Amino acid sequence: MGQQAAENLKEKMVNGVNVGQLFNTIDAIKERPDIAKFKFQATNKWINGGHNHTTIKDFYGALETHLHMEPFELDADEPQILLGEDTGPNPVEYLLTGLIGCLTSALVYHAAAKGIEISGIESRLEGDIDLRGFLGLSKDVKVGYENIRVFFKIDAAASEADKQELIRMAQKYSPVFNTVSNATPVSVQLEN
Amino acid sequence: MGQQAAENLKEKMVNGVNVGQLFNTIDAIKERPDIAKFKFQATNKWINGGHNHTTIKDFYGALETHLHMEPFELDADEPQILLGEDTGPNPVEYLLTGLIGCLTSALVYHAAAKGIEISGIESRLEGDIDLRGFLGLSKDVKVGYENIRVFFKIDAAASEADKQELIRMAQKYSPVFNTVSNATPVSVQLEN
Repeated sequence: MGQQAAENLKEKMVNGVNVGQLFNTIDAIKERPDIAKFKFQATNKWINGGHNHTTIKDFYGALETHLHMEPFELDADEPQILLGEDTGPNPVEYLLTGLIGCLTSALVYHAAAKGIEISGIESRLEGDIDLRGFLGLSKDVKVGYENIRVFFKIDAAASEADKQELIRMAQKYSPVFNTVSNATPVSVQLEN
Repeated sequence: MGQQAAENLKEKMVNGVNVGQLFNTIDAIKERPDIAKFKFQATNKWINGGHNHTTIKDFYGALETHLHMEPFELDADEPQILLGEDTGPNPVEYLLTGLIGCLTSALVYHAAAKGIEISGIESRLEGDIDLRGFLGLSKDVKVGYENIRVFFKIDAAASEADKQELIRMAQKYSPVFNTVSNATPVSVQLEN
């Protein structure tokens, strides 16, 4: 690629994604795959009852630890009907937040890589939980979400078929979607 | 149960959980299981690039829709190395927030139901993601978390064995843990 073409690509933003940087990242990873190994992490402190507090301050990736610009501080709580004080979303709502955000970003980044410009995306999702699982009242009831339904509205100069393809790509490439819709190993240990 | 005993139980708080109300809820659900059917939901609006915004304002449960005391407004974004502006946790960090919060609450509520008093809980978790999955650079690499590790410190007047039992209960009864560690059906649809 000539200097001028590289310069043009470097400046190219599609859907707010720097596509030049995206392709540079892909090239770098192809050469050195361990750049792609990321580790995300958080700490949590129980406050009281259903109220607990998560701090997210750094993560590892591209061979080094990165600090977020500022630590993210997140309260989780339960609503009053679930015996909490409603000071924050509850954990199953945080899961929905991660899922919808991840599907949206996967859609936007992959659309950008293909040069498909998107004007707007609005979405909603809902998931069913039967609390008899949490309460240990039935062994026939799932403890987690029984199922989750996501609905997307995409505003773009694209055909219905192209929009369906974006929805398909979002599912194919979203880390949270794939974490939830496949069984993901989670180990839980006591530390002293 | 006599009126006085019921009155005492009604007042009983363990770990900040109203245990009387908890047992009342369990009795009510045993009589009428559809009280236990909950639906959690959120809406999302894409802002730009990796930045999107989730609103959580209500949920369904105990046969009716409940408004949160105020809507929860959550920004998700990617850090700069992932081509975002770091205005909020990224979606895979929100998933960790839901997971650690849910394990903590499941532990606290089930300890309360057993009358086990807890003084403090601190925890941390980390999860590995190889971005070659997200980028579509390898079919052998998982798109979601490859695995997640959670570590708990529990401060309580309880034996090591009792603390291990709390850790086991947290996993058994946490909805987010069970959503992630089992394959959960997620449908994604385009709406007009």
